[in-house]
Amino acid sequence: MSAADQPIYGRVALIGLGLIASSMFWGMKRAGLAGEVTGYARSQETRDTARKIGLCDQVFDSAQEAVKDADLVVLCVPVGVMGAVAKDIAPALKPGATVTDVGSVKRQVIDDVSPHLPTGVHFVPAHPLAGTEHSGPESGFAELFDNRWCLLITDAETDRTAADNLARFWRGLGSNVDEMEADHHDLVLAVTSHTPHLIAYTMVGVADDLRRVSESEVIKYSASGFRDFTRIAASDPTMWRDVFLNNKDATLEILGRFTEELFALQRAIRQGDGDHLHDYFTRTRAIRRGIIEAGQDTDAPDFGRGSAS
Amino acid sequence: MSAADQPIYGRVALIGLGLIASSMFWGMKRAGLAGEVTGYARSQETRDTARKIGLCDQVFDSAQEAVKDADLVVLCVPVGVMGAVAKDIAPALKPGATVTDVGSVKRQVIDDVSPHLPTGVHFVPAHPLAGTEHSGPESGFAELFDNRWCLLITDAETDRTAADNLARFWRGLGSNVDEMEADHHDLVLAVTSHTPHLIAYTMVGVADDLRRVSESEVIKYSASGFRDFTRIAASDPTMWRDVFLNNKDATLEILGRFTEELFALQRAIRQGDGDHLHDYFTRTRAIRRGIIEAGQDTDAPDFGRGSAS
Ligand SMILES: NC(=O)c1ccc[n+]([C@@H]2O[C@H](COP(=O)([O-])OP(=O)(O)OC[C@H]3O[C@@H](n4cnc5c(N)ncnc54)[C@H](OP(=O)(O)O)[C@@H]3O)[C@@H](O)[C@H]2O)c1
Ligand SMILES: NC(=O)c1ccc[n+]([C@@H]2O[C@H](COP(=O)([O-])OP(=O)(O)OC[C@H]3O[C@@H](n4cnc5c(N)ncnc54)[C@H](OP(=O)(O)O)[C@@H]3O)[C@@H](O)[C@H]2O)c1
Repeated sequence: MSAADQPIYGRVALIGLGLIASSMFWGMKRAGLAGEVTGYARSQETRDTARKIGLCDQVFDSAQEAVKDADLVVLCVPVGVMGAVAKDIAPALKPGATVTDVGSVKRQVIDDVSPHLPTGVHFVPAHPLAGTEHSGPESGFAELFDNRWCLLITDAETDRTAADNLARFWRGLGSNVDEMEADHHDLVLAVTSHTPHLIAYTMVGVADDLRRVSESEVIKYSASGFRDFTRIAASDPTMWRDVFLNNKDATLEILGRFTEELFALQRAIRQGDGDHLHDYFTRTRAIRRGIIEAGQDTDAPDFGRGSAS
Repeated sequence: MSAADQPIYGRVALIGLGLIASSMFWGMKRAGLAGEVTGYARSQETRDTARKIGLCDQVFDSAQEAVKDADLVVLCVPVGVMGAVAKDIAPALKPGATVTDVGSVKRQVIDDVSPHLPTGVHFVPAHPLAGTEHSGPESGFAELFDNRWCLLITDAETDRTAADNLARFWRGLGSNVDEMEADHHDLVLAVTSHTPHLIAYTMVGVADDLRRVSESEVIKYSASGFRDFTRIAASDPTMWRDVFLNNKDATLEILGRFTEELFALQRAIRQGDGDHLHDYFTRTRAIRRGIIEAGQDTDAPDFGRGSAS
């Protein structure tokens, strides 16, 4: 940032101090987006770690203390506990404050959080499309959100000033910002993230089960795709359990389509229908080209990490 | 290599001049593994390109000319045409020569190739576990095989001198070499590569089908896992068609297990059984740790390419 930039919020409170919150903290410091940042996490251990590594200007032993006087409160906890956390902090929220979250599912979080928030507090849900398979207070880094999308969930009821400030805030963290409706978000993410994660977890589970192929063989000879799958399947179990339980409908819909198409390919393999396979595999290349053209991945060979067969 | 190293083979012939063959060529030059390298590809276009970029010391217009006097002949064509190519070159093979291949499937290739080879020619099938999603004569690079595994298929009948020389050759290309029996190879690869590829193709196909989520949304908001899936699903359609048609049994077996486990997870989502999901997602993390410890991937955050949810 240039020194002339004003912080967007005087005080920001981070509730939950894991990968996303710690990355937000370092990103806020990099860009001078907040006057002061307070934090709270459930366990003493995480709070101690945060204090030790200088994560947050002040770490409090209760969420209510952390959100007191905050202009922006960011819920950075697993999707399944967003409602409970909102209920806990509600009495301590400053009138006019903005509450947001970073949950990977939006409809259920909105249904869980909204009822607890007092009038005059603006709720603008958000979802940064960035992460790694690591978690906890020490896993964050300022660059996590650079050039990634952050989706704000808005509708006719949204307070525009609150949403516009939050959009500026996410741009300050390095993201591109789009706005979207909650159910559509949940469907898009079921396609681009949630179902792929479930599939990756399943494939790694199958490899782990198979007694005729030893674990050491799976490990030694794992090439991508499989190696990429294991990376995905190393993500936090609590976070992902909550994602699937709370984006149930969209995930089940996409899974249904997935198994339908998989069965068609399986039948083509069984019947030796090479044309069906070839056509299918040709069609899917176009999407890859689109992603590269959109600058969301590179086409460079990734020496040694590349796919093998 | 040190200048003192002798080439392992006086003359090496590459049949098929795509990603694998061109990477082998540059790798042989880097390490001085062959006195001379000849080449042949099916199309005039590929042969012209090869001549233009200096791929092979001599490019011939027939496979028979290319293999004449070769001490090592490497079949670098799709799995489905290995048999036809072997039949074509058989009369021109030098007595005592070694024939190998780089196909991603082994049992079927052995069944297709062996019957054509004259006595006194040694067949030692191989499979380098390295690749990218690119193909063709211009996609190769010398480093492709560095620190990757190359599996040689051997049994009691294998000519040990031929196999040992081929192992030295692959080590010279940068690989680690293991030996394995053909059917076991096909099962291991069905787990670590073939089924993951089919799944990735399927998931990308589902995204492409879904009219309620636009292609531009899929592209813009694709995070890993999905972005990794699109990379995998950009691989050559002919190569992969042949892999699935020729590793039918193992692929169908692993697919069967995969859908079984996927259905169990799907039911857990439908019934809200969070413990089942959490347990499953915890178990799969151990495999990831093993892969990192084995040095087959890194644990570093891959800024911006990492998973999002
Ligand atoms: N990781 C990703 O790839 C990614 C990407 C985008 C969005 N998200 C979303 O971001 C949110 C946080 O994910 P993360 O990756 O940052 O997770 P994380 O690293 O596992 O951190 C979660 C934090 O939440 C705290 N917490 C858990 N349960 C709590 C409770 N009942 N009350 C108060 N605090 C609680 C944890 O505290 P303790 O440490 O004390 O247990 C921890 O500080 C999730 O909603 C996730 O869906 C994640
Ligand atoms: N790519 C990988 O990730 C990978 C990894 C390990 C092993 N493999 C195996 O390596 C082999 C080659 O794969 P690749 O990636 O190098 O493929 P590629 O880049 O697509 O090249 C294939 C080559 O085979 C030639 N060819 C095709 N059909 C032929 C025929 N009927 N007769 C003679 N030549 C023919 C092609 O000639 P034209 O150019 O003239 O069509 C081309 O030069 C396959 O068996 C594959 O399973 C691939």
